[in-house]
Amino acid sequence: MSAVDVVNALKARGETVATAESLTAGLVTAEITTVPGASAVLRGGLVVYATDLKASLAGVDAALLAAHGAVHPEVARQLAEGARTRCGATWGLGLTGVAGPDPQDGVDAGTVHIGLSGPSGSAVETITVGGDRHEVRSASVIAALDLLLDHLKITEG
Amino acid sequence: MSAVDVVNALKARGETVATAESLTAGLVTAEITTVPGASAVLRGGLVVYATDLKASLAGVDAALLAAHGAVHPEVARQLAEGARTRCGATWGLGLTGVAGPDPQDGVDAGTVHIGLSGPSGSAVETITVGGDRHEVRSASVIAALDLLLDHLKITEG
Repeated sequence: MSAVDVVNALKARGETVATAESLTAGLVTAEITTVPGASAVLRGGLVVYATDLKASLAGVDAALLAAHGAVHPEVARQLAEGARTRCGATWGLGLTGVAGPDPQDGVDAGTVHIGLSGPSGSAVETITVGGDRHEVRSASVIAALDLLLDHLKITEG
Repeated sequence: MSAVDVVNALKARGETVATAESLTAGLVTAEITTVPGASAVLRGGLVVYATDLKASLAGVDAALLAAHGAVHPEVARQLAEGARTRCGATWGLGLTGVAGPDPQDGVDAGTVHIGLSGPSGSAVETITVGGDRHEVRSASVIAALDLLLDHLKITEG
């Protein structure tokens, strides 16, 4: 029950979250809002499926995208930062990766970078997930919520 | 299989779609991207869960939101228009409504407004859905995809 845990933890802290999602395309915000009362903690999100929207909507460096493609750890970090600042949230989550079935920008399906941006800095986690398109996206949502939850626990106090 | 139909219809026309979602919070874009190759037709979306983001991210008139709240047909229409212009898509879908379980802004749970914006104008459909939070949101996603598909068929030529 990651989504419930995230909502409860943020509520207890009086904090909010926003996302910038590529391969998951809104699944993280959709999962958070399965919880009644999620509006107290979810600001919103940016679904940046097209590469150019990662720059124009979320503020990812266009030169970075041109040099490395959309699936790169630094893109995930900048997506998280863009989500946080453009949606006015305490925490930002950014997800970019290859859901498959085909590779993208020379990166194999199942490679996913998850960025987290918070008041005191940022982090990026890279996971490699087996399975089909649905499994890769589901695992990415769980990993993103867990990454946020872990940081909420670490900074509790 | 609405999502597959939408992707195929847009691909055949060389057109794209974007969304601005409130109560569904990314479920429409997530549903479209269950289809492999959706990147050819989905630009992206705005998850505008907090009311102020409907104005700042999607360009909905702030005075309209102040006067009528977030759940109003004209808000859905402006969300669709904002999705289309800010994400650079041929078609925009905008969804606002009350997933429940509680009423919002004096509007009962299950009331959902769906806006569609296209090259030659806009439309709004209002549905009233029974059931729990999950059922209201799922029915909204299907209604939104059907609304778009109906217009794609009407304007086929």
